[in-house]
Amino acid sequence: MLQPVRGMVDWTPDKYYALLTVARKMSAVAEAYGYRAIETPALEHFEVLKAKAGEEVVNEIYYFRDKAGRELGLRFDMTVPVARVVSYRVDLPKPIRLYYFTKVWRYDEPQFGRFREFHQFGVEHIGSGGVEADAEVIAVSLRALEAVGSADYTAHVSDRRIMDNILESRGVGGSREDVLRILDKRGKVPDEELVKMLMGRGLSKDIAEDLVNIANVNTPIMEAAHTLSELRVRKDLVDYVESLATLLNDYGLANRAVLDLGIVRGLDYYTGFVYEIYVKDFKLAVGGGGRYDDLVRIYSGQDMPATGFAIGVERVMMALNIQQNPPKVDYYIYPISREQYSLAVRISENLRRRGLSVVLDVGKPSLRSALEYASKIGASKFIIVGPREVSKGVVRVRDMEKWSEVEEPLNNYIG
Amino acid sequence: MLQPVRGMVDWTPDKYYALLTVARKMSAVAEAYGYRAIETPALEHFEVLKAKAGEEVVNEIYYFRDKAGRELGLRFDMTVPVARVVSYRVDLPKPIRLYYFTKVWRYDEPQFGRFREFHQFGVEHIGSGGVEADAEVIAVSLRALEAVGSADYTAHVSDRRIMDNILESRGVGGSREDVLRILDKRGKVPDEELVKMLMGRGLSKDIAEDLVNIANVNTPIMEAAHTLSELRVRKDLVDYVESLATLLNDYGLANRAVLDLGIVRGLDYYTGFVYEIYVKDFKLAVGGGGRYDDLVRIYSGQDMPATGFAIGVERVMMALNIQQNPPKVDYYIYPISREQYSLAVRISENLRRRGLSVVLDVGKPSLRSALEYASKIGASKFIIVGPREVSKGVVRVRDMEKWSEVEEPLNNYIG
Repeated sequence: MLQPVRGMVDWTPDKYYALLTVARKMSAVAEAYGYRAIETPALEHFEVLKAKAGEEVVNEIYYFRDKAGRELGLRFDMTVPVARVVSYRVDLPKPIRLYYFTKVWRYDEPQFGRFREFHQFGVEHIGSGGVEADAEVIAVSLRALEAVGSADYTAHVSDRRIMDNILESRGVGGSREDVLRILDKRGKVPDEELVKMLMGRGLSKDIAEDLVNIANVNTPIMEAAHTLSELRVRKDLVDYVESLATLLNDYGLANRAVLDLGIVRGLDYYTGFVYEIYVKDFKLAVGGGGRYDDLVRIYSGQDMPATGFAIGVERVMMALNIQQNPPKVDYYIYPISREQYSLAVRISENLRRRGLSVVLDVGKPSLRSALEYASKIGASKFIIVGPREVSKGVVRVRDMEKWSEVEEPLNNYIG
Repeated sequence: MLQPVRGMVDWTPDKYYALLTVARKMSAVAEAYGYRAIETPALEHFEVLKAKAGEEVVNEIYYFRDKAGRELGLRFDMTVPVARVVSYRVDLPKPIRLYYFTKVWRYDEPQFGRFREFHQFGVEHIGSGGVEADAEVIAVSLRALEAVGSADYTAHVSDRRIMDNILESRGVGGSREDVLRILDKRGKVPDEELVKMLMGRGLSKDIAEDLVNIANVNTPIMEAAHTLSELRVRKDLVDYVESLATLLNDYGLANRAVLDLGIVRGLDYYTGFVYEIYVKDFKLAVGGGGRYDDLVRIYSGQDMPATGFAIGVERVMMALNIQQNPPKVDYYIYPISREQYSLAVRISENLRRRGLSVVLDVGKPSLRSALEYASKIGASKFIIVGPREVSKGVVRVRDMEKWSEVEEPLNNYIG
């Protein structure tokens, strides 16, 4: 009962400052690309959430009724709430560039890298239909990873339309969603198993093997157009990928992107390009995104192209082993007796006005135990305010690292 | 359906940056006093929440069962989750100073200053039983208000033990909780009504009137000891208030505090001093807190004195009318045609590396509509990258405020 709810984390200071720093650095990247911060309520009408969650994610929504009988749910991502906001904020000039760094909730089985409450950083770029917006979104996501210290990251890019076109050209009808869902398991189950599963869906062995091979395509993005042409993919889709490659090259990110036709993404709202981001040898995607040109229309009735990504913050922190100590306490102020307390308050307040972090003793501990405590909380300096010192117009200042002590004029500290 | 859930707010950038700035400034105050940031899950076991919510607040908890049948609730404050964390993190050196700036949820009837999702900034000071800790907590809360621009604020201080002692000395037994709950309505219902309600609880007219008069006591904190002595309050409680007054005077805050015996606070966990903060002529308390020496024991079984406060961030923003525009976009980069796009990307990336906020055009708008859009999003400068300019080795830089335009060497922007 004392532990947090299963799958959730208590962010005590020893852990929380790393998260705060990641938030600050990633947010700065989004701001540099002209994105501005947004936050929405944790709760949404369930109706809004389920519209485009996709079968798997709908089952992961924390759902309940409030006392007025409203069906509510905790948001599972920020793309859906932002699409809702943009639907009624028709005054916002398009394209709209928004970013967020916030919590989302999914009732998933907790395991390595999967939490029931976790943080996402991401952007939504709404109102641009062009490949330039897609390239920008990829660039922001990869720069955000760089900003928190990743040197080894790759964007695995695909496009729902490409797989659709490939399935169509192979004569796979009707059950395309099912086929994609099977291909999405690539890497988790052996290829032979995938072939069997596809054959179970009525595909011939040849086509099933062909599709599994295609899902395993993994080509540097600059060679992607060539690969797609060989797969007899429709010209406009080849051209799209070629443009994306050129743009990523402009951003200096061509060597950070591959065409990976096995990328499907679980969320129903994607309509075009999709991608996932991998870091070093970390097995799980640390982020992903894509184009969702139909989502805003569900809410507003208006056509509105859109693209974006979300990064799983906890996963990035795991993959890069990001840690950070809380900020240091600069001064610990120790009045020897109640008579010096008033002066100790003045010294503390004065140092705080200078921007320093100051802990004033609030108990009646011995000097020894006050020193021990100050050391435990990592105070840099320890100031002793005693009757003898005060009568001499000084304080004793102890350096907690060097364990050296000097007398300094009291006036230095109450000036 | 497009609007946020009733009683909740969409923090679009036009509003959100004010909140982010308040968060930054208030957090800096807490850090200056040696407090360190903590965050806990939005969801808690309902068992944990209800232990000390108090009758009224329990009814305001967003409650539900998850798919495994767990009884969960959204936290209604941070004091309870922090008490839970401290109960199992026995390694943390005491006293523990923690602060938070985060969301809480209460299913209350939405009205002026009352939201169902709102932000609290606050501190928990755990492990100190002395009045020095109480004074520090008050000081942090008032400095936080100063930091966001309040010049006119008052802490209304009382103590549960004082009212208890007064009721006891007036022979009021058994139903003290009820009596306090009636007195808590002071200001909302007329005094005569309060007297009638108290008489309805079996009190004599004399005692009822006496109590309503006492609840209306409002004395500068430096005169509080005198007032309490006249009310025949127990010596140790008078001494406590006198010490608190002296300390607040040391902090330079004596003229910011009054003894207000009508302050009760709705939450069950308070055991000693309680206070509320009022700003200017804003009718609702913008914050409050007090001592809760029994709360940690519920979870840990160990005695652990504690004190703290929470500020209602939305209320402070309303009371002080805090607003802030999103940060400016420094540059809008406009390539005249696709041939200049690669160069436009390089210019954009280069400016971003210098810490500037840069929007790169992603569509194919006319110069005129690009300028209109750049103006709407508040871009300071607009850079035109065209074939004629590039062949001359320049770009055109337009100052969006002065509507003046100059040619500048391209090398300034890709250096």
